[in-house]
Amino acid sequence: MLIDLSHQVSRETLVYPGDPPLKFITEASIEIEGYRLTQYSFGSHTGTHIDAPSHLIKEGKSLDEFPLDHFVGRACTLDCSNTREIPAGLIEEVLGGTIPEFLLLYTAADEKWGTDAYFRDYPVLSDEAADLLAGLPLKGLGIDAPSFDLPEDTHYPIHKKILRKDILLLENLTRLNQTLSSPFTLFCFPLNLRGADASLSRICALTS
Amino acid sequence: MLIDLSHQVSRETLVYPGDPPLKFITEASIEIEGYRLTQYSFGSHTGTHIDAPSHLIKEGKSLDEFPLDHFVGRACTLDCSNTREIPAGLIEEVLGGTIPEFLLLYTAADEKWGTDAYFRDYPVLSDEAADLLAGLPLKGLGIDAPSFDLPEDTHYPIHKKILRKDILLLENLTRLNQTLSSPFTLFCFPLNLRGADASLSRICALTS
Repeated sequence: MLIDLSHQVSRETLVYPGDPPLKFITEASIEIEGYRLTQYSFGSHTGTHIDAPSHLIKEGKSLDEFPLDHFVGRACTLDCSNTREIPAGLIEEVLGGTIPEFLLLYTAADEKWGTDAYFRDYPVLSDEAADLLAGLPLKGLGIDAPSFDLPEDTHYPIHKKILRKDILLLENLTRLNQTLSSPFTLFCFPLNLRGADASLSRICALTS
Repeated sequence: MLIDLSHQVSRETLVYPGDPPLKFITEASIEIEGYRLTQYSFGSHTGTHIDAPSHLIKEGKSLDEFPLDHFVGRACTLDCSNTREIPAGLIEEVLGGTIPEFLLLYTAADEKWGTDAYFRDYPVLSDEAADLLAGLPLKGLGIDAPSFDLPEDTHYPIHKKILRKDILLLENLTRLNQTLSSPFTLFCFPLNLRGADASLSRICALTS
C-alpha cells in the first residue's frame, strides 16, 4: 500500500516564520483563455520538503548533486511521540537491528499542522541522539515537525551535525503513525531544480 | 536501475511561449543570514510536468483528486522517432501485448530542449492514434516534447480527447531512448498542491 507522507499545500498553508509567502496565482482560466494555468511561488523550505546539505553547510551538496537512487530506500519509523527531547536510548533500539537507509521520527507534532503552535511546539533530538544518528550510514532522516532545531536555536546545531554527513533532512512529514508497524520503502524524489538547497517533495511510503 | 526522465530546471530554462516567467530568487545566503533559502516561482506547466484533466476540461479532475497509486504503474515506451505524425499503426502494435498503465512516446524531440525550436518542431499523434489511445485503460500518456498539440492548435483537440478519459498527460520528458528495450515501472508523483491543473514532477523509470 502507498501512504502519502506529504501535507497538501494550498493558498492557506502557513509557512515557517520569516519564509517567503506562498502564492497560487490564477494565470489562465477555462472561461477566459480556454485553459487553466496557475503560477506557484514558494520558498524552498515550504510544506513537506527535503533539506540538502547546502541549506546550512557552505560547501555542502545541493539536491541535484545526489544520484537519483539516493531518494529511494529501506525505511523504518521510530515512535518518539511520548517525549519532548528524543533520547539516545530510543535511537540505540534501532541499532539493534538492520540499519535502515531512511529513519523517520514519529512525534505526532503534525497534529498541530495549520496552526501557529505547529512552528513552536515540537520535540527535537537530544545532542547524544543527534550524534548517534550522524554516525549512521543513513540516506535521510525525517520528522513530522517543522524543523530539527528549536526556533531559538538560530545556529541550527542539529541540522548541521546531520547535514555535514550528507544525510538529507525530511521535514513536515505527516501520517507517520501509519508506518510504525514494519519496515517499508520510502520514495522522496525532489524536484530537479539546479542548485536546490531544498525542495518540496511528494514523499511516499510503500508498505508490503 | 533508476532513470531520470525529468529535465533539470534552472534560471535559464525556457518556458512554453506565453507561460509565466520562471524565477529562482535567492532569499537568504550562508554569508549573510547563515543559511540558504530560495524562492521559486513558476507556471504549473513548466519543465517536466503532469497535466490534469482540469487543465482543459471544465469539470475535469485536478491532480489532488487522483489517488496516490495512480502515479505508479507498469510502463512501456514506443519508438516514434521516425515520424512527423504518429500513426494509428504504431499504437496498434502495443495493443498486441499486455496494455501498460503508462505509455510513453519517444520522439527524440527533447534533443532540441533549451532552444526556441523545441517549442515549434515536434511530432504529434494522428487523430486516429489519439482516438485509439483514448480508448485504452491507461493511467497516463507521456511524450518527450512540449505538448500533445501543435502550437497552432489552440483548442488543444488531442489534449482534450485524452484528458476527458482521466488519462494524465506527461510532457517534457527526456531520456526515453533509455527505456525502449523492455517494460519498466514508472513513478510520476506530482507535488501535493490543492486544485493543481498541472505540476512539476520528478518522473523516474525503474528498470529491472
